[in-house]
Amino acid sequence: MTFKATVLTLYPDMFPGPLGHSLSGRALDKGLWQLETSQIRDFATDKHRSVDDTPAGGGAGMVLRADILAKAIDAAAPDTDPRPRILMSPRGKPFTQEKAHQLASGPGAIIVCGRFEGVDQRVIDARNLEEISIGDYILSGGEIGAFTMLDAIIRLIPGVMGNMESADTESFETGLLEHPHYTRPTEFEGRGIPDVLTSGNHKQIAEWRHDQAERLTAERRPDLWQRYLADSGGQ
Amino acid sequence: MTFKATVLTLYPDMFPGPLGHSLSGRALDKGLWQLETSQIRDFATDKHRSVDDTPAGGGAGMVLRADILAKAIDAAAPDTDPRPRILMSPRGKPFTQEKAHQLASGPGAIIVCGRFEGVDQRVIDARNLEEISIGDYILSGGEIGAFTMLDAIIRLIPGVMGNMESADTESFETGLLEHPHYTRPTEFEGRGIPDVLTSGNHKQIAEWRHDQAERLTAERRPDLWQRYLADSGGQ
Repeated sequence: MTFKATVLTLYPDMFPGPLGHSLSGRALDKGLWQLETSQIRDFATDKHRSVDDTPAGGGAGMVLRADILAKAIDAAAPDTDPRPRILMSPRGKPFTQEKAHQLASGPGAIIVCGRFEGVDQRVIDARNLEEISIGDYILSGGEIGAFTMLDAIIRLIPGVMGNMESADTESFETGLLEHPHYTRPTEFEGRGIPDVLTSGNHKQIAEWRHDQAERLTAERRPDLWQRYLADSGGQ
Repeated sequence: MTFKATVLTLYPDMFPGPLGHSLSGRALDKGLWQLETSQIRDFATDKHRSVDDTPAGGGAGMVLRADILAKAIDAAAPDTDPRPRILMSPRGKPFTQEKAHQLASGPGAIIVCGRFEGVDQRVIDARNLEEISIGDYILSGGEIGAFTMLDAIIRLIPGVMGNMESADTESFETGLLEHPHYTRPTEFEGRGIPDVLTSGNHKQIAEWRHDQAERLTAERRPDLWQRYLADSGGQ
């Protein structure tokens, strides 16, 4: 079973976009994942092909219509399609590395990209859309959120990354931010590489990295640090 | 003064990518913001044009070299360039709507997109790079983070959004997630629009929306809800 993403959007020309390059692009070429897009506007019913209307109760912006989006969703995926139906939305549950792993091990995703002021709540309810947010900021539409989520997922699909080992020590995989990195040259503008890293003592190197990861997390992300302390029983 | 983004990347062909479409694309065409890219690889010094090397102390992955990235940064922006120098990094400070406003009101940004396992810490220190993260997940590189950050910034630049009013009630602008939206048709698959929204009573509509925003935030984002309660003095 290959991971298949179906993206519902008003801007299908944006795809594959950044996902056509580098790691995800090579994986797409190799068939390690599949991407298809659906133009929501194709399901409009009037001659202007309009997909939105003014918000009930007044206010700024336009709202994506429930009936038109429902038709687009139904055409993209029958009820029997096992893939989760996701709406990229700032009101959604924050996307995490854990969620990326969960989705990467599944059959794919149907991803709805909102635009305008928002999406009519009734289609979210009626089609059981799972709202996911990539962060606490507002984007011009869901497309960049879809790129972000898919990029995080695709690199975790078996065979995509050359060296799976590389994923295990990264930020968030251990509950900590990652330690600092150094490489050649040995000296850069008078700045050296920490002695321990050139000592050849693997135990000390591992300890130093772990200490640095703890220090960085405590300094920069008190929220992650408290969770880490709670999960590790205060050790 | 026009907002100018300079993006340092190993994949300049990815740009403007999604930022060339829709709202940000039209704003780019109108000159409301500027975008330039710099190919980090152009600053490599060996015949293979290599930009990375193995991590000091061992381990998986490759590390972007401090000396080569420093040359790319110095060529893109002299010391006198007032723009903040940002490194997209999962170890960075979380990007927020407040940060988007702050950057949108400034002269622009120099944005470094990492790849591989990471970037040599010494260039982060020596060039005073501000590490920013778009969320708690790992991407294949900084480019999609740059798209995300720029999209959130650009829509806030004066003149980019047609109706500035639209930004004020959005999620995060009020400290709350946004209320649900509804539009025509009045009935969708047996589901109606809440009566209050068709009542024409603007005060009741505003109250209903505020109550819904509070309810959604309390249910979905206890972290935001606690901050909101603290900021509003427990009201």
